[in-house]
Amino acid sequence: MGLNNKNLETSKKIIVLGGDGFCGWPTSLHLSNLGHEVVIIDNFSRRKIDTELEAESLTPIQQMDTRLKAWEEVSGKKIGFYELDLADDYDQLLEVIKGEKPDVIVHFAEQRSAPYSMKSPKHKRYTVNNNSNATHNVLCAIVESGQDIHLVHLGTMGVYGYGTAGMKIPEGYLDIEVKTETGERIEQQILYPTNPGSIYHMTKSQDQLLFFYYNKNDGMRITDLHQGIVWGTNTVETKLDERLINRFDYDGDYGTVLNRFLMQAAVGYPITVHGTGGQTRAFIHIQDTVRCIQLAIENPPQREERVMIFNQMTETHRVQDLAKLVSELTEGEIAYVPNPRKEAAENDLHVENNLFLSKGLKPITLEEGLLQEVTDVARKYKHRADKSKIPATSTWTKDQEPGIPRDLVK
Amino acid sequence: MGLNNKNLETSKKIIVLGGDGFCGWPTSLHLSNLGHEVVIIDNFSRRKIDTELEAESLTPIQQMDTRLKAWEEVSGKKIGFYELDLADDYDQLLEVIKGEKPDVIVHFAEQRSAPYSMKSPKHKRYTVNNNSNATHNVLCAIVESGQDIHLVHLGTMGVYGYGTAGMKIPEGYLDIEVKTETGERIEQQILYPTNPGSIYHMTKSQDQLLFFYYNKNDGMRITDLHQGIVWGTNTVETKLDERLINRFDYDGDYGTVLNRFLMQAAVGYPITVHGTGGQTRAFIHIQDTVRCIQLAIENPPQREERVMIFNQMTETHRVQDLAKLVSELTEGEIAYVPNPRKEAAENDLHVENNLFLSKGLKPITLEEGLLQEVTDVARKYKHRADKSKIPATSTWTKDQEPGIPRDLVK
Repeated sequence: MGLNNKNLETSKKIIVLGGDGFCGWPTSLHLSNLGHEVVIIDNFSRRKIDTELEAESLTPIQQMDTRLKAWEEVSGKKIGFYELDLADDYDQLLEVIKGEKPDVIVHFAEQRSAPYSMKSPKHKRYTVNNNSNATHNVLCAIVESGQDIHLVHLGTMGVYGYGTAGMKIPEGYLDIEVKTETGERIEQQILYPTNPGSIYHMTKSQDQLLFFYYNKNDGMRITDLHQGIVWGTNTVETKLDERLINRFDYDGDYGTVLNRFLMQAAVGYPITVHGTGGQTRAFIHIQDTVRCIQLAIENPPQREERVMIFNQMTETHRVQDLAKLVSELTEGEIAYVPNPRKEAAENDLHVENNLFLSKGLKPITLEEGLLQEVTDVARKYKHRADKSKIPATSTWTKDQEPGIPRDLVK
Repeated sequence: MGLNNKNLETSKKIIVLGGDGFCGWPTSLHLSNLGHEVVIIDNFSRRKIDTELEAESLTPIQQMDTRLKAWEEVSGKKIGFYELDLADDYDQLLEVIKGEKPDVIVHFAEQRSAPYSMKSPKHKRYTVNNNSNATHNVLCAIVESGQDIHLVHLGTMGVYGYGTAGMKIPEGYLDIEVKTETGERIEQQILYPTNPGSIYHMTKSQDQLLFFYYNKNDGMRITDLHQGIVWGTNTVETKLDERLINRFDYDGDYGTVLNRFLMQAAVGYPITVHGTGGQTRAFIHIQDTVRCIQLAIENPPQREERVMIFNQMTETHRVQDLAKLVSELTEGEIAYVPNPRKEAAENDLHVENNLFLSKGLKPITLEEGLLQEVTDVARKYKHRADKSKIPATSTWTKDQEPGIPRDLVK
């Protein structure tokens, strides 16, 4: 039983923006379970995109009112909810902040799929407009409210780019040496120069500039979490009742690499590796995501301290190695397909993650038991899968090809 | 007589976005005069802001149709015009690009006042929304059109921040050394880490990421011009007929430092220095602005070449020195007023500008004759001045005070 029935002495009022999503929902439950007073804001944009793409979560996620009622039944705790479009309805956002007086705002409310952001000019424009205005409106409203609120934002490892010439990627800030006019060398620490790989990643790089500026001008306390690829589905809390189940994306736009491989194997679809599979990526389990958000909330920066940046990942893997692992575990077949992305065919990736470890994170790393759990979820709901939605069809330029297995190309 | 009646052999079709504004209008005339085929796109946002602020250009600028008719009368050349909001009307923008098939797009179409961008939450939000979507829509439409168009964008020196620890600010890219995991030092060249001083400057820093990404993913040819503070009013072409006169902003939001000092002296208002006047800034005369745009167009980057960045400035000055110079020239009195901006009281500034010099720019630097010309313009139209609009009242935070001379504070 994962329920925590005593209220924390340090119970906080926390607004979770995007609290209906894949990371937002389990985070909301986890924070509520810890004894915090949680309020969700969401505009259901992710569900509306399911409708647009005609691709649903593999797991049967429930409507928000069902979710909240189930949580109250199971835990005895209430979570508040406002349906609100952050990018569009600034005045209502400000009113909620003034009324709720949160200690913390956790911001998941951005369009978060790289392939979706590259799907068409319309999707590029939606991603820039939504992410830029949503994030700026939150910052602007916090200042206008006059309240001292800690903002915790979900960023991405993708802002760093891949391939770092032998360097270990630091947590947000890079030590450099530059030459002065007189030839003297001076040491400086700068925001790591970003190298985004899609319009989506570009918006998260832009967010960093927004945070830098609001921190500098208004002394705002901000934590930016550069997260790796999330795998897994359920957390302690979402497992308590089927009505609390978390979203599982498997389609070519929103599905992410490890979960997709496990699902492909479970439904008898080839395990689709884009290009050579030589790409190395950073990973984190969904249970660690919610724990990292908790740690970020418990360890806020001081007022006037610079933006605190954590690398929210626990391990790195080469895509082809993951494909082989899943193939061995499930006896699924691997299909090497064209890479719809414009990116390096192969890269190394070394990442610092000492900050979260120093705050007490005990990483959940890839192991058969947890992979088996995802496979079990995928098998249980495989009757809900639409295989035609599996291939990655959004290409980065018109010269790229979609990631469709050769014998399935029409 | 400044008219150039022969067509260039290399005549280009050029769309000027924001071609009704302070830099856009003289640029459009200059490019037309050189024999290029010029088309202006503007949504008159700057004139609408005049109405909002109840502050007009000191000079009597004419409506667009009068301007264009006057230019045709004077030069025999036609300039095309579309009224269009870039941030809002993507489809029409795309249609214009597909129909006009420009070789070059010059992009001045952003909200360009730092104080206006800090005036209120509404103004912060307008600046982010307008600048981010306008710039992204242009990039997105160029890719969607499938045409090979050179984009020339007006950025700002302000993205660099002020105070550079003895370094000369390079042109966009900084040479650094970093340590690898094995302790080896490696040299890299990165986009200069930005340190914007207002929401406006922040949007121009964000633009750099948009350009970086579209250049990387789509091979787009882009030139980004980091311009200093523009002074002067007229150019060879705008002087040809009073109906072609350029805008002269003197109000606390849109007026810029040197022109404001000259105007203040001309109308018998104190020369208002913010803080100590120890700030050092980069400057360029409006005649050099239009020449730099010409040079940027004549020296485009190659396809797949990285974004070309020029520092578009010709000299640096300390604000208090400019105030003294103007005071000596005009016998105006200097008033030291509170600084409404949150910024360092004093800074040095050393800037590279070899790129434009190497392309043939012969800088117009501060000299009495040209200062006198601005003073003459200010005196000629001083009956149009509203002195109540002179103080800088937009403050960077609620702790800053407006820049009003003590004896004028109500």
